[in-house]
Amino acid sequence: MAILAFMPDRYAYLGPEGTFTEAALLTLPNAAAAERFAFPTVPAALDALRSGTVDRAVVALENSVEGSVPTTLDELATGEPLQVVSEIHLPVEFALLVRPGTRLDDIKTVASHPHAQPQCRRWLSAHVPHAEWRAATSNAEAAQHVADGLYDAALAGSFAAARYGLEALASEIHDVEGAVTRFVELARPGRPPERTGADKTTAVAFIRDDHAGALLEILQEFFVRGINLTLIQSRPTGAGLGSYLFWMDFEGHISDARVGEALMGLRRVCADLRFVGSYARADGTAPHSRRGTADADFAEAAAWLDELRG
Amino acid sequence: MAILAFMPDRYAYLGPEGTFTEAALLTLPNAAAAERFAFPTVPAALDALRSGTVDRAVVALENSVEGSVPTTLDELATGEPLQVVSEIHLPVEFALLVRPGTRLDDIKTVASHPHAQPQCRRWLSAHVPHAEWRAATSNAEAAQHVADGLYDAALAGSFAAARYGLEALASEIHDVEGAVTRFVELARPGRPPERTGADKTTAVAFIRDDHAGALLEILQEFFVRGINLTLIQSRPTGAGLGSYLFWMDFEGHISDARVGEALMGLRRVCADLRFVGSYARADGTAPHSRRGTADADFAEAAAWLDELRG
Amino acid sequence: MAILAFMPDRYAYLGPEGTFTEAALLTLPNAAAAERFAFPTVPAALDALRSGTVDRAVVALENSVEGSVPTTLDELATGEPLQVVSEIHLPVEFALLVRPGTRLDDIKTVASHPHAQPQCRRWLSAHVPHAEWRAATSNAEAAQHVADGLYDAALAGSFAAARYGLEALASEIHDVEGAVTRFVELARPGRPPERTGADKTTAVAFIRDDHAGALLEILQEFFVRGINLTLIQSRPTGAGLGSYLFWMDFEGHISDARVGEALMGLRRVCADLRFVGSYARADGTAPHSRRGTADADFAEAAAWLDELRG
Amino acid sequence: MAILAFMPDRYAYLGPEGTFTEAALLTLPNAAAAERFAFPTVPAALDALRSGTVDRAVVALENSVEGSVPTTLDELATGEPLQVVSEIHLPVEFALLVRPGTRLDDIKTVASHPHAQPQCRRWLSAHVPHAEWRAATSNAEAAQHVADGLYDAALAGSFAAARYGLEALASEIHDVEGAVTRFVELARPGRPPERTGADKTTAVAFIRDDHAGALLEILQEFFVRGINLTLIQSRPTGAGLGSYLFWMDFEGHISDARVGEALMGLRRVCADLRFVGSYARADGTAPHSRRGTADADFAEAAAWLDELRG
Repeated sequence: MAILAFMPDRYAYLGPEGTFTEAALLTLPNAAAAERFAFPTVPAALDALRSGTVDRAVVALENSVEGSVPTTLDELATGEPLQVVSEIHLPVEFALLVRPGTRLDDIKTVASHPHAQPQCRRWLSAHVPHAEWRAATSNAEAAQHVADGLYDAALAGSFAAARYGLEALASEIHDVEGAVTRFVELARPGRPPERTGADKTTAVAFIRDDHAGALLEILQEFFVRGINLTLIQSRPTGAGLGSYLFWMDFEGHISDARVGEALMGLRRVCADLRFVGSYARADGTAPHSRRGTADADFAEAAAWLDELRG
Repeated sequence: MAILAFMPDRYAYLGPEGTFTEAALLTLPNAAAAERFAFPTVPAALDALRSGTVDRAVVALENSVEGSVPTTLDELATGEPLQVVSEIHLPVEFALLVRPGTRLDDIKTVASHPHAQPQCRRWLSAHVPHAEWRAATSNAEAAQHVADGLYDAALAGSFAAARYGLEALASEIHDVEGAVTRFVELARPGRPPERTGADKTTAVAFIRDDHAGALLEILQEFFVRGINLTLIQSRPTGAGLGSYLFWMDFEGHISDARVGEALMGLRRVCADLRFVGSYARADGTAPHSRRGTADADFAEAAAWLDELRG
Repeated sequence: MAILAFMPDRYAYLGPEGTFTEAALLTLPNAAAAERFAFPTVPAALDALRSGTVDRAVVALENSVEGSVPTTLDELATGEPLQVVSEIHLPVEFALLVRPGTRLDDIKTVASHPHAQPQCRRWLSAHVPHAEWRAATSNAEAAQHVADGLYDAALAGSFAAARYGLEALASEIHDVEGAVTRFVELARPGRPPERTGADKTTAVAFIRDDHAGALLEILQEFFVRGINLTLIQSRPTGAGLGSYLFWMDFEGHISDARVGEALMGLRRVCADLRFVGSYARADGTAPHSRRGTADADFAEAAAWLDELRG
Repeated sequence: MAILAFMPDRYAYLGPEGTFTEAALLTLPNAAAAERFAFPTVPAALDALRSGTVDRAVVALENSVEGSVPTTLDELATGEPLQVVSEIHLPVEFALLVRPGTRLDDIKTVASHPHAQPQCRRWLSAHVPHAEWRAATSNAEAAQHVADGLYDAALAGSFAAARYGLEALASEIHDVEGAVTRFVELARPGRPPERTGADKTTAVAFIRDDHAGALLEILQEFFVRGINLTLIQSRPTGAGLGSYLFWMDFEGHISDARVGEALMGLRRVCADLRFVGSYARADGTAPHSRRGTADADFAEAAAWLDELRG
C-alpha cells in the first residue's frame, strides 16, 4: 500500500480553532473534507495519532523568527516514534484583534502565545507602548479571552477574527517581513512517501556523552557523501546540562544511495539514531549535487567493488 | 578598574519576586545587600542594564530539560551588545503550590510558565489527571493567580510559597532527577573578568548564507586549536527559514592564546562574530587540554616564528 | 579456485643472483623448490609476469631508510595492472665484500646500487674515508665488478659473498639499526587472497587536477570509516609538476565492509582509483578498530536501513 | 643586510660539468660571472655550503616524471639545516650522445644516471632494443665514460656534447613531453628572501609515531587558513617502516599572516617542524586566496581581539 494513495479521514492539530496550525492544515489537499480535531497541546495531538484516534497530525516545527518549537522536536526525537510525511510553509502575518469598537487608546492588555509577542514587539512599542502583555496557551485562546472581555486585544492571524466575533484593528503588524512558520504533517511509522527529486530527510542523532568532537564526526558523515544540512538543532536529552541530541534536516530522500549510506554511517558512530522521515520539500528546491554522489555513481562503484572481490 | 573589584549596587532580574531567577540572583555574593529590581520580561531587564538603570542583570539561558531560552539567546546575539560575566547553575525543583487547605481532589486548574509544565508532565498525569493547565508569564505570576483565587494550583519553587501566602501541597514533583537551569549574570560590554583556569567563553557566529559547509568550517576552527564546545545552538537570524546564527559556548578564556586565535579565525571566516563573554565555569571543570595548545606552546611557536622571520 | 592453494612454479625477481630481492623471495614457502628467474630491471621482471612467462614476481617496494622505490610504485600505479598478494619484510644488513686478502687500506673504490651507499655513508666515512663510490645497477653487479677486479669493494648482503668468490671484510656496516626493506609478491589480477584478520590493502588514487583540497577529501573517506593509513606516497603522474597520484596502504581487507565502502567512496570522488591488492601483513598486526566500524556494525546498519526503506 | 642584495661569488652544484644541474645554475643572474664548483654527490655540495666553502648550492629537488630526489629531501629535512632561497624549473630534454661516427646499430651499451633511463625507456626500446643500460653517477659521468670508450652512448642534455667531444645522434628522445626538473638554490639559514606576492614556502613535519590521523591533522592546519599545498611527500625518518616525515611545499611566504599562523600551528601539533624556506615561485603563480585569509583580514581580527581583551 503506497502512503501517497492513502487519503486520511481524521486529522489532529494544535488548537483551538483559528490558530496558524489550523490554517496550515487546511492547505493539505484533502483536509477540508476530512474531520479535524483540535487538541490543547502538541503532545495531546501526537498521542491521538499514536493511539490511532486520528490518521494524521499537523504541528508547528520551526519559525523563522522564534526558532524551532521545543515540544515538537522533543516529542519526535524522544517520544514514541512518529514519521514526518510532508512539510508546510505558512507566512507569519499577525493582526491585532479586538472587540468591535475598541480603539488603540483603549488597549491596556494584549494577549498571545509567548512566541507571538516577540514577533510584534516593535509594532507594540510604537502603537500601544503602555499596554501590558498577557500569556495565553495559544493565540486563538487569547482571542477567546478578548471576546470574553478578560483582555483588550489579541495577537493572532486575521483569519481568527470572524470565528471569535472580533475585528482586526490593525493587520500585518509583525516586525519582520517574510517570516515563515514550518509545519509538519505526521503519520505513524511506515513506508516513507515516494522520492520526488526535491526531498528532505530528518533524523535525530544521540551522541555518546564521553565523546569530544562528536558533532564534527557527524558533520563529516554528511560531508563525504556531499549532503547539505538545512537545519541542525541541538536539544538537551534531559540527562543533565551538556548532554545533547542533534535534530538534523538534510537534502535528499532515504531511497537515495548517498542518504542511505550517510544514515548507516551515523547509525554506526552515534549512540543512537532515529529516522524521522523523508518527504517532499515545501520549497521544491532540488539538492545541490556534488560530483560522484548521484545514485549512478554509487551503482558504478558497487559494481566495480563486486568485480574486484571476485 | 578591574571588573572583579566592582560591587554592583543594583540588579535587574526576570520577576516577579519568587521566581527561580530571583533564587539564582541571590546566590551571587553581594546580591542580598544590593537593590534588586524585578522586570516582567527578559528584554525589559536587559534594557534596564543597557540604559544604566541597573549595574547587572540575571536571566535564564538554558535548562537541562527544556533547552535554551530563545529570548535570552536572541537578545544577547542580536540586541544591543551585553556581556556575560558569570554563570549560575540552579537545581530545578518544582513544588505544587496551593492555597492552604486545598486537597489534590480540589484541583481543576494548574498554572505555570510554559517551560515548567513539560517538566512536571508525568507527575501531573499521575496525580491530577483531570486538571487543565493554564499559561502564566512566570511561575511566580501563576502563584499570584492562585493566591487571587483565579487558579487552583501553581508549579513553582517551594521558596515562593511564603511570599504568596501559599503552601506546598507536594514538592520535588519534577519528572527528571538532576535537572539544572543555567542563568547568566550580565554587564555592559567592558574588560572581561580575569581568567580563573576553569573558564568558558561564549560567542555568536553569523554564517554567510551562500556558504554550504559553513558549520563544518566553524567546527574546524575549534578543532585545530583543541577547544571543546560545551553548547552549540542554531537560531534563526530572522532573515528567512534556513538563515541561522550559531550560539557557541566553549572551554577557555579570551585571554588564552588558543581561544584568541580561534576567535580571530572565526572572525575571518564568518559573516560576523559577536563575543558575548568569558567567565568562570559554574561547575569549576578545567578544560581538557590537547597537546600543543597551552599558552606556553603558543608562546614557544611565536618566538620560533619571530626568529625565522628575522 | 582459491589463490592461496595455488603453488607457483616460476618466480621472477630483480636480479642478479645475490641481491636482497632474491633473499626475500627465498623466504616464501615454496620458492626454494620453484624455478627462479633473475631480471635486470623491475619493469622486465613485471613484464615477465604480465606475459605469463612466470607465475609470480618479487620486487622491493619500500625501504625504511631510502623510502619507496619509484619504479615499483610507478609500474604498479600506472603500468598494466598487477596485484600484490603478499608482503615480505627483510632486515637491511650490509657487508663490505672484497676479494680475499684485501685490507681496508687497499680500498680505493667502493661500488653499490645508488640506494645502498647512503645507508652506509657514516661507516664508509669513518673506515674508508678516501675511497670513491661507484654506481652499479645492483649490489650484486657491484660484487661481480669487484670479483672482476674493476673495483675494490662492494656493499651487499653477506649472503652474496660466496656466490661471487668474495669475503666479507666487515659486516653490519649500515648506519641505521633496525632498517627494513619491504618487498611485495605480485600476481596477475584475480581474486584477492583470503582475509586473515591482520591484512593490508593497497590502492592508488588519481586526483582531479582542478581540485584543491583533494588530499583532505581522500583522507576523510578513510577517517569516517575508521581506517588507518600505514603509507601514503605522492608520485607525479608524468603530466607536469603539481599533478600527482597517491599510493596508499591501509589497514584491512577488501572483503571488510568498511574497506569496501571506503574504496567505493574513493572511486566516486577521485578521477580514478586502482585497487592494487589485499594481503596479509608481514608484521601480523591486527587493525586498530574504532567503535562502529566492524562488519557486524555495517550489517546491523544495513538491516536497519532496509527495514526503514520498507 | 638583505639577502637579495647579496651577490654570491662561489656556487656548489652536483657535477660534473655538463649536468642538468649546471644548466640550471647558469640560469641564475650572477652565476656566469661567479666561481662554480662541481661536487660528486648532493651531500658533498651541501657540506661545502654548510662549511662556508661556497655561498650557495644548486641541486635537483623534484622531477615531473621521476618524482622527488630522495637524497636532497633527506639532506634538507634531517641534515644540518640549510635554506631554500630560490627555485629553478628546467625542461627535461634528453639527447643520445655518442662518439662522432657512431651509428644506432653500433650501440651495445647506454649509460646514464638511474633517473634518466626511465625517462627515455620507450625511445630506447624502439630504437636500440638490444642495448644494455649501465648506471653512472651522473649523466655527465656517463658522457665521460662514452668519451673514454667504456660505453657506446650516454643519455644527457645536448649541451653536454661539446664538453666531452661527443655528438648528439638523436635529440628530444625523452618519452614524456613537457617534463620539468625543479632545482633549488640553497643558502645557509638566515633572513628569508623578501615576499614577492607569488611565493612558496617549504617545511618538514615530523609526526609523533603514536598518533593516528596525524596527516589529517596537519592538512587541517593548512585548510583552516586557506593555504593550498603544491607538494606533499612522505619520507621515512629512518626509525623503522611506518615512521614518516612529511615534506610540504605550499603557497605563500613566511611573512604572510596566514602562513605564519599555519607554521605556528604545525609547530605545536607536530613532534618537530623544520622551516626550509620561503622563495619566489618559478612559475610566478599568485596564490589562490580564500575569503578571510589576506593579511588585512588577520590584522582586522587581531585589532578586534585586542580591543575585546581590553
